[in-house]
Amino acid sequence: MTAPLTATLRWIGDVDGYLELLDQTRLPGEVTTIACRSVETVETAIKTLQVRGAPAIGVAAAYGVCIGLQSALDADFPTLLARLDAAATLLAASRPTAVNLFAALNRMRAKSRSLDERTPVRELARVLLDEARAIEREDRAMCRAIGACGAELLRDGQGVLTHCNAGGLATSDYGTALAVFFTAHEQGKAIRVFADETRPLLQGARLTAWELTQRGIPVTLICDSMAAQVMREGRVHAVVVGADRIAANGDAANKIGTYGLAVLARAHRIPFYVAAPVTTFDLEIRDGREIPIEQRHPSEVTHFAGRPTAPSGVDVYNPAFDVTPAELITALITDRGLIQPVTTEGIARVLRDV
Amino acid sequence: MTAPLTATLRWIGDVDGYLELLDQTRLPGEVTTIACRSVETVETAIKTLQVRGAPAIGVAAAYGVCIGLQSALDADFPTLLARLDAAATLLAASRPTAVNLFAALNRMRAKSRSLDERTPVRELARVLLDEARAIEREDRAMCRAIGACGAELLRDGQGVLTHCNAGGLATSDYGTALAVFFTAHEQGKAIRVFADETRPLLQGARLTAWELTQRGIPVTLICDSMAAQVMREGRVHAVVVGADRIAANGDAANKIGTYGLAVLARAHRIPFYVAAPVTTFDLEIRDGREIPIEQRHPSEVTHFAGRPTAPSGVDVYNPAFDVTPAELITALITDRGLIQPVTTEGIARVLRDV
Repeated sequence: MTAPLTATLRWIGDVDGYLELLDQTRLPGEVTTIACRSVETVETAIKTLQVRGAPAIGVAAAYGVCIGLQSALDADFPTLLARLDAAATLLAASRPTAVNLFAALNRMRAKSRSLDERTPVRELARVLLDEARAIEREDRAMCRAIGACGAELLRDGQGVLTHCNAGGLATSDYGTALAVFFTAHEQGKAIRVFADETRPLLQGARLTAWELTQRGIPVTLICDSMAAQVMREGRVHAVVVGADRIAANGDAANKIGTYGLAVLARAHRIPFYVAAPVTTFDLEIRDGREIPIEQRHPSEVTHFAGRPTAPSGVDVYNPAFDVTPAELITALITDRGLIQPVTTEGIARVLRDV
Repeated sequence: MTAPLTATLRWIGDVDGYLELLDQTRLPGEVTTIACRSVETVETAIKTLQVRGAPAIGVAAAYGVCIGLQSALDADFPTLLARLDAAATLLAASRPTAVNLFAALNRMRAKSRSLDERTPVRELARVLLDEARAIEREDRAMCRAIGACGAELLRDGQGVLTHCNAGGLATSDYGTALAVFFTAHEQGKAIRVFADETRPLLQGARLTAWELTQRGIPVTLICDSMAAQVMREGRVHAVVVGADRIAANGDAANKIGTYGLAVLARAHRIPFYVAAPVTTFDLEIRDGREIPIEQRHPSEVTHFAGRPTAPSGVDVYNPAFDVTPAELITALITDRGLIQPVTTEGIARVLRDV
């Protein structure tokens, strides 16, 4: 197994350090990193998808808050809190769908409320940095647990299909949907992954195919429109995808195209799994109708590498996500185990002590 | 209504003339034509999709045969026949799926068998050119008839979805699936077309959006993976696509992604129509399993405008077509009227006197 060339993200140094991000917009052609030394750099990185994937966005935002505190290291406690609030507010507006972003920011805010204001500010900033590090560490552990849980569903010789990138690049490390494949592969099961290229931004072609190739897992790249045909040919025994937000009833928002895949999987009697850590669940909302869906710029569809591929000025619909209703999801693969069938009660039972 | 800027194809001159093709690989950025003065130029144009769409390929091939005769205009009758045979053989190997190609070549061969060998060769070449012109003229008429037949299915204010390009660019003029929209629009019905961009070669974005825009029909460009979401939102009241070959039982080969759309349409209770002229039917084959499916080069998926978008050497599955089973097709829209339900008997009844 080849190790990834570099980490999705990592904090370098102490409280006056910086966040290093692998620039995912340049992959697979260039493996380059970005040093984030301002909250705005982190915000831009999230907005422009230099860092993407719900869990990775959450961790990056937590570190983004720590960067926001750096101008208050020699100031007083109220200033520290004000800078934290400003950073969290800015980062919260970067992308609307992935709930991990808000969960991580809320956790940093909650930590700040537990601080003793008599402690030196630099010490408090270190406590908050430790909280961000804990979010990252827990994310890594959750991904491993998801892998162990989901790998049990796959058998030697099976074909699996995934959409977008729910891999190590979408998390601190190891991934959610791809963690299932990585663990099955480590268990010695021969699997072949069909990777949807995932228009418009090609995360499947650029990121998923790259991650699987690096780990020596056989991967076949297909256009999104080919998934139905591959299913019909009997080559796919399970579909496994990630999620950006899962409602209390199990409705799951994920990259646009996921809902269609779920309908196709049902029509072909193929199990459809959503793999996600507990941080991706939003128990505050009853169902998927309440999940805000980000609309992105038409140029993502009409241009490639700056070159137009459609008539200028054409109307475009470009939702970044869709919502797969719980009834189309065979099971949720979580770090706390499998949730099957997918019901409000089943989810509540597993997540009660979150 | 704005007229198209130039014709999909046209024969310029007499028997010693040439075939002018609109280079569809350059659209919508550049509107340029190719002058085909050799059979090989026509063959290359078909292979590289400078001309594409089943009916247009058929007409181009018929004219390609006429170009092949030009070196025999001052020779004898056996030479004329030999050149015709060589040209038809070369052109028949250009692409395997669209049956219109073989139908047109067979018609040129059949015409050659009816010739009187005592007639001057140049005269006979003119008879064959007239046959190619008849194929083009009939194709134009069939497209108009398809439009009239299909427009009856659409109502004012409806949304429709199409895949790839089955427009004027895929035929001599006016199209098959798009003919339905053009006619409905000419009848004063307000319709909105959702155009799948159609990966990997983006015929929907480059060609369909361009044709609809030119005719002033509202069009919304979407990625292929967004079709399910648009259907779920209730914006689509009918799906209309073209076909490259329809078997005796109604199974229809069309651009990869069509089969998945048909499954999605069924799941959303949206009628799914295939629009095609009688020349696209292949009554020699019982069902879709016998339709040869062209596999195209992986670079269509892994590269864009010469730039890699996937890890180098990744395995790719790139079928150009899939087959939609007759049971998923609500009706066939043909130049001889609607075939509904889609059955071997229903098709035979309409096509008996072809």
